[in-house]
Amino acid sequence: MPLINSEELFSKLARQSKASSIREILKIIQSSDVISLAGGMPDPITFPVNDLKEICADVLTRDSGRALQYSSTEGLLQLRKFLLQWLDLDKKRYQTDNIVITSGSQQGLDLMSKALLDPGDIVIVELPSYLAALNAFRSYGAEMIGIPMDGEGMQIDLLDKILKQITKKGKKVKFIYTISNFQNPAGVTMSLSRRKKILKIASKHNLFILEDNPYDKLRFEGKPLPSILSFDEEGRVINLGTFSKILCPGLRLAWITGNKEIIEKIVILKQATDLCTPILNQMIAQEYCSKGCIDKNIDSNISVYREKRDVMLESLEKYFPESAFWNKPEGGFFVFVTLPEKINADEMLYDAVKEKVAYVSGSSFFANGEGKNTMRLSFCYPAVDDIKEGIKRLGKVIEKQLYN
Amino acid sequence: MPLINSEELFSKLARQSKASSIREILKIIQSSDVISLAGGMPDPITFPVNDLKEICADVLTRDSGRALQYSSTEGLLQLRKFLLQWLDLDKKRYQTDNIVITSGSQQGLDLMSKALLDPGDIVIVELPSYLAALNAFRSYGAEMIGIPMDGEGMQIDLLDKILKQITKKGKKVKFIYTISNFQNPAGVTMSLSRRKKILKIASKHNLFILEDNPYDKLRFEGKPLPSILSFDEEGRVINLGTFSKILCPGLRLAWITGNKEIIEKIVILKQATDLCTPILNQMIAQEYCSKGCIDKNIDSNISVYREKRDVMLESLEKYFPESAFWNKPEGGFFVFVTLPEKINADEMLYDAVKEKVAYVSGSSFFANGEGKNTMRLSFCYPAVDDIKEGIKRLGKVIEKQLYN
Repeated sequence: MPLINSEELFSKLARQSKASSIREILKIIQSSDVISLAGGMPDPITFPVNDLKEICADVLTRDSGRALQYSSTEGLLQLRKFLLQWLDLDKKRYQTDNIVITSGSQQGLDLMSKALLDPGDIVIVELPSYLAALNAFRSYGAEMIGIPMDGEGMQIDLLDKILKQITKKGKKVKFIYTISNFQNPAGVTMSLSRRKKILKIASKHNLFILEDNPYDKLRFEGKPLPSILSFDEEGRVINLGTFSKILCPGLRLAWITGNKEIIEKIVILKQATDLCTPILNQMIAQEYCSKGCIDKNIDSNISVYREKRDVMLESLEKYFPESAFWNKPEGGFFVFVTLPEKINADEMLYDAVKEKVAYVSGSSFFANGEGKNTMRLSFCYPAVDDIKEGIKRLGKVIEKQLYN
Repeated sequence: MPLINSEELFSKLARQSKASSIREILKIIQSSDVISLAGGMPDPITFPVNDLKEICADVLTRDSGRALQYSSTEGLLQLRKFLLQWLDLDKKRYQTDNIVITSGSQQGLDLMSKALLDPGDIVIVELPSYLAALNAFRSYGAEMIGIPMDGEGMQIDLLDKILKQITKKGKKVKFIYTISNFQNPAGVTMSLSRRKKILKIASKHNLFILEDNPYDKLRFEGKPLPSILSFDEEGRVINLGTFSKILCPGLRLAWITGNKEIIEKIVILKQATDLCTPILNQMIAQEYCSKGCIDKNIDSNISVYREKRDVMLESLEKYFPESAFWNKPEGGFFVFVTLPEKINADEMLYDAVKEKVAYVSGSSFFANGEGKNTMRLSFCYPAVDDIKEGIKRLGKVIEKQLYN
């Protein structure tokens, strides 16, 4: 009997969705003794295991009928209330119908795409930007246009110019996607004045801003900056937050904050997507937060990651050639390295893995296919000694490329 | 400052997605003393709370670094292996790359829609069928064509005829959606001969069959029937299974089984949708299953639901007018009632809620808008005494409609 030809029954958009090459190489890395500076996974040392174990038992003893049942699509009311207060959002503007709990921020990206994007619509992204966000937008048929960044974030004058050009061509831009703090992969934080300017540009061109904020609270030094959301008086900013980097990713808990109309639409779409986010997981996080543990945990996470960043920066100074340069991120998980132009970081990865070290080549993050000579290095997961050794190995691989 | 007009930036498909009226009325019901025969929630008495509490503590003690971390999109390997064996699937045909864990079966419905449906494509559904499945298909712009059922399930001759008509019109049908056991809402089980026939029809017209099987194991009497999947030699059947009705819905764990190409595509799409299903939840379910607890739990669930079904059927005999009729489901959660044609069950619901009893009016389940005189009654959640009292109240409401 001939097998079905699945491909010919796939939807147009599904046919275009391919497995990422990173994903394939990450699989190889996981199954060997390679030091990985590739993945963006938090260090398990930061997970408050004993607290979570105790709370989980409490929740199941006290309220199992609720914890193991279906629950509301909007998410646990007490958790939403906690978040609004904890995030210190304007009480008049942000109430419980301005926030929805999602199954990780990736679901936030998916639902925002579903809510806003028709095939052919344009999304403005930073150059470079978070790969899985680009994939979510692509999966709805969006085209991405990238705006280069400098040390203050997206270059606003260029943004305005390009938006005008796009409008002239009759194309529809729906939103600007930005990771405003300790950007993934570039490690850059958008300056205060840029935050205000980007909002004005969005207003001028009637766009949403999708502000993705996973590393927000993980600031190692310097003054925290207010979110773009906090300046928004037009309901134009949608903010994504997550427990993945400050508590743990395994619970798959995140949230979307925005104007009531968009949140209502997200709830309707989420209902058709997964009905609800696991309520047990939400009750655990809510109880953890209401006990006042989350800020303490963040403080200790900051110490862990600050040390790791410092070790990575020191090692880079020591082992990388003078012709390479990188930023000093004030928080988050990543250092972004630009290598001399003759190096192709996509191809060099195979040599690196042979020398038992891995990174993510930067080109995957560039919506326009540039960045062949760049790489993202994560200091979040590997142990301090592995960071030193990994950078040392990588330094050698680069030297070889330069002088062979 | 004028607020953003969100509506004008929504995608075409999002603009069409509206909150269901059921959802709104269910909200009212939840916050009052109404006996609800509406929702399809399992009875919390069936949740093995102590086992889950113990296993959760075990998992977090033994392997917290894994349980709280990001995990693979495919889902926990050991859980997938367990399921393949437990479901007794042909070992040659079904291996670990033929199965993916999803965040509830609703995610399975969403991902299948995303994989297969372009706007305007047609999905064949049963008349009536599961509302949230219809909503998932609609959210991708599909058109639904309903095929009436009799006591053996979807009427196959009619199916063949209608498929021919659709093909003549040049429209594209992608799959047939069927709930083969104890159908939601009709309670009907597809007969063995129909299972074989529907597969032949799907082959003839080159379609997938999406076999949704949430109640499969909850058979109160009679011989279990093999799934449509088990007869499939062409990779044409995709089967959805779930822990929601046999363990608990709160973990949000389900699975999709199918040919390797479709499962690979689902994994790629799922990655852009939510990265992964919570691994903690998967490890809990896996350990619960590997301890051999799941079959025991199912046996005890069957006793609970069989008694409730019997009580509902007895009460219907006692309190419903002779002009109403209903089926006797051999398993699952639902009895489907057809009332005299003069009754509009949509409108009657308001009277019912006044009399402190609720149901879901059948019309919501009919893709063609029919079924105004039908209702779905769930015996799964309410206590035995509430089922009696609820049916008694509902009987009075119907009498009033008939004779006033």
